[in-house]
Amino acid sequence: MTIAKDIHADLTVIDGLQYSNWDRALLEELRDGGISAVHATIVYWEDARQTLSLLADWNRRFRDHGDLIRSARSGEDIRVARKEGRIAFVLGAQNCTPIEQDLGLVEVFRSLGLMIMQLTYNNQSPLGAGCYETVDSGLTRFGREVVREMNRTGMIVDLSHSGERTTLETIAFSQRPVCISHANPNFFHQNVRNKSDKVLRALAESGGMLGFSLYPLHIGGAACTLEAFTAMVARTAELMGVERIGIGSDTVRGWPDSVLDWMRSGRWTYSTAKPSWPEWQSWYRTPVDFGNLTAGLQARGFSGQDVASIMGGNWLRFMDAGFKQANFQ
Amino acid sequence: MTIAKDIHADLTVIDGLQYSNWDRALLEELRDGGISAVHATIVYWEDARQTLSLLADWNRRFRDHGDLIRSARSGEDIRVARKEGRIAFVLGAQNCTPIEQDLGLVEVFRSLGLMIMQLTYNNQSPLGAGCYETVDSGLTRFGREVVREMNRTGMIVDLSHSGERTTLETIAFSQRPVCISHANPNFFHQNVRNKSDKVLRALAESGGMLGFSLYPLHIGGAACTLEAFTAMVARTAELMGVERIGIGSDTVRGWPDSVLDWMRSGRWTYSTAKPSWPEWQSWYRTPVDFGNLTAGLQARGFSGQDVASIMGGNWLRFMDAGFKQANFQ
Repeated sequence: MTIAKDIHADLTVIDGLQYSNWDRALLEELRDGGISAVHATIVYWEDARQTLSLLADWNRRFRDHGDLIRSARSGEDIRVARKEGRIAFVLGAQNCTPIEQDLGLVEVFRSLGLMIMQLTYNNQSPLGAGCYETVDSGLTRFGREVVREMNRTGMIVDLSHSGERTTLETIAFSQRPVCISHANPNFFHQNVRNKSDKVLRALAESGGMLGFSLYPLHIGGAACTLEAFTAMVARTAELMGVERIGIGSDTVRGWPDSVLDWMRSGRWTYSTAKPSWPEWQSWYRTPVDFGNLTAGLQARGFSGQDVASIMGGNWLRFMDAGFKQANFQ
Repeated sequence: MTIAKDIHADLTVIDGLQYSNWDRALLEELRDGGISAVHATIVYWEDARQTLSLLADWNRRFRDHGDLIRSARSGEDIRVARKEGRIAFVLGAQNCTPIEQDLGLVEVFRSLGLMIMQLTYNNQSPLGAGCYETVDSGLTRFGREVVREMNRTGMIVDLSHSGERTTLETIAFSQRPVCISHANPNFFHQNVRNKSDKVLRALAESGGMLGFSLYPLHIGGAACTLEAFTAMVARTAELMGVERIGIGSDTVRGWPDSVLDWMRSGRWTYSTAKPSWPEWQSWYRTPVDFGNLTAGLQARGFSGQDVASIMGGNWLRFMDAGFKQANFQ
């Protein structure tokens, strides 16, 4: 693996989604894994007011660990961070709860550095249907307004947890490419969170991005091998094009089981289920193992250029374009 | 007045406080009055969530009237606006309600362009006492934290509606000069909102700014003459120094009487008083009349340079410094 690790250190590695309770030790894991930038979830069910305090907490984290991390609002910020030897954090929300029912809050939260937002998280939202709903509303009236406003203000649309109809309608409606930051193809592992070939093709044709999830439930469990994973990457590259794929590890570190319960149940159900975090696969337990992905892709036969694209280059180009303010109406 | 009006047009005129329901016609009043920049109040009693929607409304106003106005977050923005022929708006809050009890919200709202904030509005707040309280708490524990954070983030402290003890303690505690954006000396007109010589001296010695109010209740009513007003300005210049004074007209346009009731009563009292807007003086009815102030100061014998300083130059220098991020802890 020595050669692979050397190559890994030269890459701009971008993880398309993590949600961790970052302290110094967890930030150092990112550094040790050679990660240049992370799309970090800050919201699951929080409303506008709660999101303000979460952003304030991030301001403090950026100050307290300014030698290790910085905020990023553009691809350029990611490049600068890499030159400075810091990890760039792109903040995002896995739900539309921060904007409540106020269209103007898209621009307000974009101004505060909320760069990526899911339209739905598992459930029906005012914008569209989540992937666990029986009936898929599609992109709603308010949803169309919000997508248009996200397009205008340079906030990237994420459809990872959306239902299929909502996903397809949003891909078609959005004036800018959207992403599915953390999910896998259903041809690899059938799961309500994974995506059909139809969705993946539409995403690719629109110029969008898929981030491959490393979350055990999205790859069929911890028994999944690195070889099986990279075979999936290769098949998806054939389906979507190698420039449309990246990593979105869905890594979760430093949270107790109660946070998994919060992610699933929020305050919308009195469910008494007490879920536990799954066991992770041997080849990816923490972000320290990111180099194994580079090695695995090389072993699969991807060219150096393609490995660089998948490990971060594609996300970087996508974010370069996606975070720019647009003149769309 | 022809000569005075010519001079007026060459000045960078800054109004240290207005609160109007700006539509196109009211924005054109500012332009016709030769005003370069306005500190515009957006908050009296609104909490964090409500302030977000008000900021969103301002985003929209800046878009809809982008040929006439722009947002300003620095003295340089004001200079650029003047070159562009646009009026610069510096947004501010007359109360600390937006930050609720969350210290981190100072930086969050500063990031959103809330540039100036009063610690108190008439009543006791978590930060200090308003000028209508019987007992003046002085600057509180949380108040000291907030002032320190405003100093750090470049949000200017405004004490116009604070009690005397709170005002003096804040002037002494703040690491950066503060302002009283809209009030007059008590030697001119005794009023709970006007300020003692002691406060004015302390403000001046600390490098702070006083903006003279044109609000009828602060000058003794609409019968007050322009000559009496400019005589007050001259006496205050002797007391504070001519570089420490400016205008803070407290102009209110386009609001029904119910908004005056809201300003006074918020939701903290069931008062059934139904106040009405006062009649304004003949020499200042609307911002269109701003040139009369320049003419009046000239007639009073101020030099051209001093007139320029009072009409905007002092505010501009104060904002240049006050909006910069600091390294204070």
